Amino acid sequence: MVVSDSFFMRLALQEAWQYQLLTYPNPAVGAVVTGSSGEVLSVGAHKEAGKPHAEVLAIRDAYIRLTGDMSLAGCDDAELLHARLPELSKSLFHDKSIYVTLEPCNHTGQTPPCALLIERLGFGRVVIGSMDPNPLAAGGAARLENAGITVTKGIERAACDNLLLPFVRWQKGRFLFFKLAQSINGIIDGDTISCEASRRWVHAVREKIDRLVIGGETVRTDRPVLDCRLTGGQAPDVAIFTRHPDSIDRSIPLFAVPKRRVEFIDRLPEKGLVMIEGGAGTFEALKEEIDALVLFIAPFVKEGMGYNGGKNFDILHQRKSGEDMMLFLRGR
Amino acid sequence: MVVSDSFFMRLALQEAWQYQLLTYPNPAVGAVVTGSSGEVLSVGAHKEAGKPHAEVLAIRDAYIRLTGDMSLAGCDDAELLHARLPELSKSLFHDKSIYVTLEPCNHTGQTPPCALLIERLGFGRVVIGSMDPNPLAAGGAARLENAGITVTKGIERAACDNLLLPFVRWQKGRFLFFKLAQSINGIIDGDTISCEASRRWVHAVREKIDRLVIGGETVRTDRPVLDCRLTGGQAPDVAIFTRHPDSIDRSIPLFAVPKRRVEFIDRLPEKGLVMIEGGAGTFEALKEEIDALVLFIAPFVKEGMGYNGGKNFDILHQRKSGEDMMLFLRGR
Repeated sequence: MVVSDSFFMRLALQEAWQYQLLTYPNPAVGAVVTGSSGEVLSVGAHKEAGKPHAEVLAIRDAYIRLTGDMSLAGCDDAELLHARLPELSKSLFHDKSIYVTLEPCNHTGQTPPCALLIERLGFGRVVIGSMDPNPLAAGGAARLENAGITVTKGIERAACDNLLLPFVRWQKGRFLFFKLAQSINGIIDGDTISCEASRRWVHAVREKIDRLVIGGETVRTDRPVLDCRLTGGQAPDVAIFTRHPDSIDRSIPLFAVPKRRVEFIDRLPEKGLVMIEGGAGTFEALKEEIDALVLFIAPFVKEGMGYNGGKNFDILHQRKSGEDMMLFLRGR
Repeated sequence: MVVSDSFFMRLALQEAWQYQLLTYPNPAVGAVVTGSSGEVLSVGAHKEAGKPHAEVLAIRDAYIRLTGDMSLAGCDDAELLHARLPELSKSLFHDKSIYVTLEPCNHTGQTPPCALLIERLGFGRVVIGSMDPNPLAAGGAARLENAGITVTKGIERAACDNLLLPFVRWQKGRFLFFKLAQSINGIIDGDTISCEASRRWVHAVREKIDRLVIGGETVRTDRPVLDCRLTGGQAPDVAIFTRHPDSIDRSIPLFAVPKRRVEFIDRLPEKGLVMIEGGAGTFEALKEEIDALVLFIAPFVKEGMGYNGGKNFDILHQRKSGEDMMLFLRGR
């Protein structure tokens, strides 16, 4: 293994994937700050829209590591960090590099522009994975180059573009993914399959999505609540995918969740971030329409019902999720 | 993410897992050399018995990176590296650290002792994951401490012990693992399922194992050759697990592989490194006896036959294998 630009970019990617989808409607982004000897000073990721961007968190933590000054430790007030870091850092970052999976933003959205912060700090080098596909935010690399900073583009470009895929899709209209939990051997029915860490992720994502689509058969059989009780947030609006709304028992708990709208659909929503949960029938019916499959694999073999139907994917990301595996698969 | 001893040890672990089982009868071991600022100078892993240990390869590559001297580049002659590195390095490593997943060996086996090399190079610090369970090779940490080197033990100990599990088991007698290739939804029959990179790994491991156990039903149905054509080495001896040897057609290709012994068994071999390949019936029959399941998951959903039976695992390692996922699961 050679320690190179790709190595640092892969660290940034790995961190960014931890927050994939949770940053909606922002893109998932990761950043790494390295010192003049090539040591990793910090790794950061954008965690939630309205909170600091990846670059800002990585710079904050590099500042703390280099100076020992804890006055900004844990601070996630973007305005404050953008204002204070240049005052405090002086020439601290002149011989440092920052790796970012996505071109630093160049506009004032919910937070000030990251390209401006990096310029003010006078970083020695900026290494970028993907260029910003959003014309509103783009131009960061050009700003940095104009400021005389060495900018390298396209490191781990394909992997950075993969990280950006959901963002690109929902910006164009819709990102639609199927969430499935199974045993190793593909069994999806019976008792709860995935571990608490995996279910916690599902609940966190349910807080962010525009709509949760659930198969009618799953509603009838499992009578799920589909709330966010493990994370404490507002449960999503639910769209029950069925041609037979009258067959659904309206007294089941999912209809009783406060502030939730429930509707019956026979066509998928056309906008936003949409998650589908369901069983074999729902997968078979909707598999051609999905952008991605988020798959939790629990580490046991058991008896039960599986799912099938022909469908090819590419593995964009994999990680342990508690005791389970989590795979993020792009539909082909 | 905090860059710490654990971070460097996890890098060493990740590299070591690439060669898990391929180092038989030696343990899989990884090593990382870091500089005085905490920069990663090199990452190495033991690749094959008789070849240099992880520490030696990592030190070789750190030496090259630090000096630019290419005279030892690609050299995998352990004797030569042990002799030349101390002569060439002088005080180069006095302010460097080395992270090793397993206590550096302290005896002369097929190669000289790594603890002696590290002592002669005068490393500033040695960080160890697992202590050597082999009394013959142990004592490296004590030697280094006696030489005045700072030694830290037990970093990522649980993960390092997991890496060592096959070695510990085969040292006590036998490490028995089931290899399975499936689609996401658990289908194991039909055309070739795993990608070339995955099959190449299987062929590389077939060169190392003491015995390949194959289910009688798989032999009858698939008529596999079970050779190492993708890696070019000697195909393993095969033990056909069946109570009905007379039902096996001796004219199929697996009997015609040169220098191969084929036997019929109704009990598993009791010693060495044993791989089982087979289908649902073989898994069901032998699942309680296996130490581990090495699972290749190809990224598609398809129709076909699955497997089942109750069995729990822990995920010890996961990685992309070409287009597939590879999981290394310890049986509970």
